[in-house]
Amino acid sequence: MTHRIAVIPGDGIGNEVMPEGLRALEAAAKRFDIDLELTHFDFACCDYYEKHGKMMPDDWFEQLKDFDAIFYGAVGWPEKVPDHISLWGSLLQFRRQFDQYINLRPCKLLPGIKSPLADRKPGDIDFYVVRENTEGEYSSVGGKMFEGTEREVVIQETVMTRYGTDRVLKFAFDLAQSRPRKKLTSATKSNGIAITMPWWDERVVAMTGHYPEVSVDKFHIDILTANFVMHPDWFDVVVASNLFGDILSDLGPACTGTIGVAPSANINPEGTFPSLFEPVHGSAPDIAGKSIANPIGQIWSGAMMLEHLGHADAAKAIVDAFEAVLTEADPAVLTPDVGGQGSTKTLGEAIARRI
Amino acid sequence: MTHRIAVIPGDGIGNEVMPEGLRALEAAAKRFDIDLELTHFDFACCDYYEKHGKMMPDDWFEQLKDFDAIFYGAVGWPEKVPDHISLWGSLLQFRRQFDQYINLRPCKLLPGIKSPLADRKPGDIDFYVVRENTEGEYSSVGGKMFEGTEREVVIQETVMTRYGTDRVLKFAFDLAQSRPRKKLTSATKSNGIAITMPWWDERVVAMTGHYPEVSVDKFHIDILTANFVMHPDWFDVVVASNLFGDILSDLGPACTGTIGVAPSANINPEGTFPSLFEPVHGSAPDIAGKSIANPIGQIWSGAMMLEHLGHADAAKAIVDAFEAVLTEADPAVLTPDVGGQGSTKTLGEAIARRI
Ligand SMILES: CC(C)[C@H](C(=O)O)[C@@H](O)C(=O)O
Ligand SMILES: CC(C)[C@H](C(=O)O)[C@@H](O)C(=O)O
Repeated sequence: MTHRIAVIPGDGIGNEVMPEGLRALEAAAKRFDIDLELTHFDFACCDYYEKHGKMMPDDWFEQLKDFDAIFYGAVGWPEKVPDHISLWGSLLQFRRQFDQYINLRPCKLLPGIKSPLADRKPGDIDFYVVRENTEGEYSSVGGKMFEGTEREVVIQETVMTRYGTDRVLKFAFDLAQSRPRKKLTSATKSNGIAITMPWWDERVVAMTGHYPEVSVDKFHIDILTANFVMHPDWFDVVVASNLFGDILSDLGPACTGTIGVAPSANINPEGTFPSLFEPVHGSAPDIAGKSIANPIGQIWSGAMMLEHLGHADAAKAIVDAFEAVLTEADPAVLTPDVGGQGSTKTLGEAIARRI
Repeated sequence: MTHRIAVIPGDGIGNEVMPEGLRALEAAAKRFDIDLELTHFDFACCDYYEKHGKMMPDDWFEQLKDFDAIFYGAVGWPEKVPDHISLWGSLLQFRRQFDQYINLRPCKLLPGIKSPLADRKPGDIDFYVVRENTEGEYSSVGGKMFEGTEREVVIQETVMTRYGTDRVLKFAFDLAQSRPRKKLTSATKSNGIAITMPWWDERVVAMTGHYPEVSVDKFHIDILTANFVMHPDWFDVVVASNLFGDILSDLGPACTGTIGVAPSANINPEGTFPSLFEPVHGSAPDIAGKSIANPIGQIWSGAMMLEHLGHADAAKAIVDAFEAVLTEADPAVLTPDVGGQGSTKTLGEAIARRI
């Protein structure tokens, strides 16, 4: 069985880390005898926008919809295209049109990576953020009134549906159920955001009834971010709305020192459409072109993709490989962000060799 | 000149820390010859709700509006009253009806308080979060459709006005201008929340023109929370919408280890209505009744109140006093959360003596 993968490097360091992501993928495919067919695309980036006045061709949906997965680098280059245009013209379209309603991001303390938190060691922090990825606070509904005057009013709607909420909760409960600790934390703000969030809490309670083994708690988003810093060991699976999940899935990796290397999966669990795998980091204009970007985010995203495609063993081999290379901590191999003098390529090659 | 202060202890540990807040206030008033007139109120708490079916009497606005300031403890007791009812029936009404459009919260690493961050010492972290406190994501506009069915949709609107946005930006720019580093950071999410937040960015740019000496940057809220953990030393004054400010002003104190002792000021800068001063911490049902709550949040809020009333010297004396007591670190005096075996009262008395 051949897995057809659409490869989209995107902007900035996306172009530098993608070759290393593919290198690891191909090494794992070879070792585990997995048949991958890679197709490269040059759209969904700001260079494409500069040439064509849009982020993607009109038939992007047709071009991509039959792939088994999309392997994405990073998108955005504010000096060329304002972020809300580049993002709403690419990544956010993928998430929405391909109904990738789960955004899954691991937060894990890795060997050899310095955490900004005091007194934490690998094993102490190991949880997932499950983020709703298609609706909620990321609506395109709203507008302005009295524009350009002193009376200007700007309105944007948060839209949550039972359909959209229950399915992300179900995914999160299933994930918690499958893990040893079986613990689920819901991110809310029902004390302040008093229409949508108390309703979110009700949906969590309704779902709780179906999972008697899962222990459930909830925190308001303000104190939850505080607890990520103070008690990251409390968490196992954290489920959150689109915006809250966005925040928590940057903050979580920041607490483990892995923000430059964390992966993410944008999943359409039914497989009706391709799922999308991308590092959490962005296109990083400040270091783009210097060949010093850490490729682990891209490589780890590739591991999540293989796992999604049914190859948990190959995924594990990739994770084991980069953990081993990090543990070895050879400064000639590691990129500067993790204390080395190596390049994107030296680190990517060392990981591929290890696989 | 007499300052008339409305004293409202609220729920839970609010009742335990308030006496210590008043003790410090009275000590400072005595030393600096300030004339305070304290009036106590038993409403705006869940006990009042249990008796009267509402959080406050109908004429609360009339009863409170002519005070110079409100000194508040903490509100909320979810087992008695759901949070969104207790909060929207008290604190959030004060903020809105008394047009306390600034929520000001210091994030400061204190001597003797353990920060969860590695390798940070007092002086390294010292910034303010300026939060919009009356509009934005905390609207009461929205509702449900197809309620109770599979098709259920819940909508809540974020409402931002130029009037409301510009005035909080102005306050934040003025504050940045007055500080040695003169640095302002704006919290945004214009890449994802694509109607309100790009407009917020435009208002920041428009205001920047009036403050040539202030250096301005912006971060999306996701990476901003990450930077609070990774680079808290980057920040001087951070300005944010109601929700983002709520998050950042819990996370900031968490990073300095001071979430249990951080203060906040809800300010109506024009003085048309009373401003309100309260600790950041909540009513803490889990430790209420044990006399172990740390009173510094209440005491520090009292210092902010005195500063607001024009007594910067008295405010400084209070802050100096609790910093000195923390530095001394006598375990018989300190509460358990900061490593002692003392009580709310032993710590409060030690601080008052020092003043
Ligand atoms: C209790 C809650 C409604 C409140 C808020 O969200 O404003 C609190 O978190 C705060 O920061 O004062
Ligand atoms: C770039 C931005 C629109 C995006 C988001 O907010 O979803 C990013 O932060 C992410 O988390 O993937």
